[in-house]
Amino acid sequence: MSGPIGGGVNVAETDLPKPEGLEGVVAAATALSHVFGEEGRLVYRGYDIHELAGNASFEEVAHLLWIGHLPNRTELDAFCAKLWDNRSLPEGVLTTLRALPADAAPMDALRTGVSAFGAIDHQRFEPAPDLDEAIALTARVPSILAAFFRLRQGKEPVPPRNDLNTAQNYLYQLFGVVPEKRHWQPLQVYLVLLADHGMNASTFTARVIASTQSDLCSAITGAVGALKGPLHGGAPSKVLDMLSEIGAAENVDAWLTDALDRGERLMGFGHRVYKAEDPRAEILRGMAEEASDPDFFALSKRTEDRALEMLAERKPGRRLYTNVEFYSAAVLAAVGLPGDMFTPTFAVSRTVGWTAHVLEQTANNRLIRPQSEFVGRTDKRFTSIDER
Amino acid sequence: MSGPIGGGVNVAETDLPKPEGLEGVVAAATALSHVFGEEGRLVYRGYDIHELAGNASFEEVAHLLWIGHLPNRTELDAFCAKLWDNRSLPEGVLTTLRALPADAAPMDALRTGVSAFGAIDHQRFEPAPDLDEAIALTARVPSILAAFFRLRQGKEPVPPRNDLNTAQNYLYQLFGVVPEKRHWQPLQVYLVLLADHGMNASTFTARVIASTQSDLCSAITGAVGALKGPLHGGAPSKVLDMLSEIGAAENVDAWLTDALDRGERLMGFGHRVYKAEDPRAEILRGMAEEASDPDFFALSKRTEDRALEMLAERKPGRRLYTNVEFYSAAVLAAVGLPGDMFTPTFAVSRTVGWTAHVLEQTANNRLIRPQSEFVGRTDKRFTSIDER
Repeated sequence: MSGPIGGGVNVAETDLPKPEGLEGVVAAATALSHVFGEEGRLVYRGYDIHELAGNASFEEVAHLLWIGHLPNRTELDAFCAKLWDNRSLPEGVLTTLRALPADAAPMDALRTGVSAFGAIDHQRFEPAPDLDEAIALTARVPSILAAFFRLRQGKEPVPPRNDLNTAQNYLYQLFGVVPEKRHWQPLQVYLVLLADHGMNASTFTARVIASTQSDLCSAITGAVGALKGPLHGGAPSKVLDMLSEIGAAENVDAWLTDALDRGERLMGFGHRVYKAEDPRAEILRGMAEEASDPDFFALSKRTEDRALEMLAERKPGRRLYTNVEFYSAAVLAAVGLPGDMFTPTFAVSRTVGWTAHVLEQTANNRLIRPQSEFVGRTDKRFTSIDER
Repeated sequence: MSGPIGGGVNVAETDLPKPEGLEGVVAAATALSHVFGEEGRLVYRGYDIHELAGNASFEEVAHLLWIGHLPNRTELDAFCAKLWDNRSLPEGVLTTLRALPADAAPMDALRTGVSAFGAIDHQRFEPAPDLDEAIALTARVPSILAAFFRLRQGKEPVPPRNDLNTAQNYLYQLFGVVPEKRHWQPLQVYLVLLADHGMNASTFTARVIASTQSDLCSAITGAVGALKGPLHGGAPSKVLDMLSEIGAAENVDAWLTDALDRGERLMGFGHRVYKAEDPRAEILRGMAEEASDPDFFALSKRTEDRALEMLAERKPGRRLYTNVEFYSAAVLAAVGLPGDMFTPTFAVSRTVGWTAHVLEQTANNRLIRPQSEFVGRTDKRFTSIDER
């Protein structure tokens, strides 16, 4: 059979049914977190996210997710000491990051750094995933990102400090100065809000990989790759791009009308599970109002309000609400992060959830191996190349 | 709340229902391949695997899976030229591999090399996944493995040759000499047999990652991590370990009886989907008989026969048959590969299937985002650290 590439494809074989993306299918049971989509509620280990945001530190939330309860003072001190002692990168990971071009995507650098860490420190990761491994990897994720962030500017990485909390030390390793509270505190709330979120695509990826009895770094490397996708965590910098294209509050209506008329997807709205406002969006909105430049917040708010009105009018049955990405952009920009570090900073937080899910999967494992529907023929006979 | 780590976990929260691992759940439709588990049949794009094994080259099968039909001579020549021109590694990938310790797992090196390639050559992978990207990555997988294989022995990587087919060139890059036909031909049949296999865990991982609209290298990096797990592709070298522990045909009965009495899992038997003999096992058995040392084949065959009898007797309802891993070990050892290169060599082949599935997912995408069953509380109230 000759002809252009693809010319020999049987029509029936490419006429695939529209995938349902496992919507509503229960893939695993978890005690870690849950998204109550109809109510717009997010719960971590029994606590509504509103109970934790602004009250608990990121380290307390990590302890809660990994170990099952909020720590007392003694527990927290021991836990932080362990986490903070695990921030240094092996020289081989730094060599790997130095081998990447300055214009590499930070998510690609993180994916490669996590993978290299697993390859280099492999003895640590040879036993089945455990809490020590989760701590060892989670503590190094911000160090990998900060090292790459500096290397791409021609600067040397800043060694971690073990007297700073996660939010403080991440900003310190990025910028080389101990951050002010008005910067690290909103970042800490952001990290608390994003630490886990039910069976999202990257968490699910980590659980599928872990279900083969592969190692923790393999699972998290895969999760980083999934989070990078714009249908998952890869879109918050696109919210910033949208807002800067709009430019000023008076342009909002015309810009949104044009975009919707062209059938474009507005960034920062809608979610597979939430059919009400994402509670994280509500908390981030308040933080953005406090932390952002007032003109930028006004632009964001006007865009949000008009977008919600227009979406309700044009897609009346869809129940599209502001999602976590919309105000993540404003908060992370106010903290001093450039747009391409937004999704990587999401990963700094979510590594806690990913590793907690891997531990849960490992403790009660069965291989995650679904079925496929086959829509092709089964009766073709081989013919030699000269007969084709 | 104080006490040992985990002491504060509510019992109800850890009492998770036994996961079902999405068994029998259709996650996607595909025209690429299908496992007919009851009949013990494997089909690629309409062709039973028996039609292809020993008849089609690995490159013809890659063309079949990616493009939809077996190529004619003109198509095959153009296709091979493209594939073979894509084997060189960027210097940054080699730097990354040099940064890994000699005792790193080759699967970890591959995962890191694929990730680094995506980070370095990111412009190539920025558009949605396409055939050119699939070719560019697939052609480099054996080069990454061969480079690491040599570096860990203190040898320099061997540059690829574009006058050798995939099986020949892989062995050439590993060992530095053009292989004899008795070595590269069984390897080529092995590569044909392993190129795709329905919705297995690594392929599913690749599709989940691709469903977020992430890039091709992210998807394949995740798939490599999943294949590494011993419940998926990570076990063939364990078959070799088992056979060398048994040592000789006269020890088979006693060894197997002991292992089964201790409740151990025998390596190389059983599969989630096959409830009949895996057709790949049948073909590999014939190849192992031709290619292996006769004593080793006799040991393998005796082990297989007795294991099947004992499993049928002890687990009568389970329908456990020889799987692809059992004779993969014999064939790959006969080709000259050490045990820790078996699973990586599986990846050389399966990268074709993984990338073909990513292209199929991308062409007709919906985010793969399942649900979870929440088994925790939802009503806890935050208390400050001094009240815990």
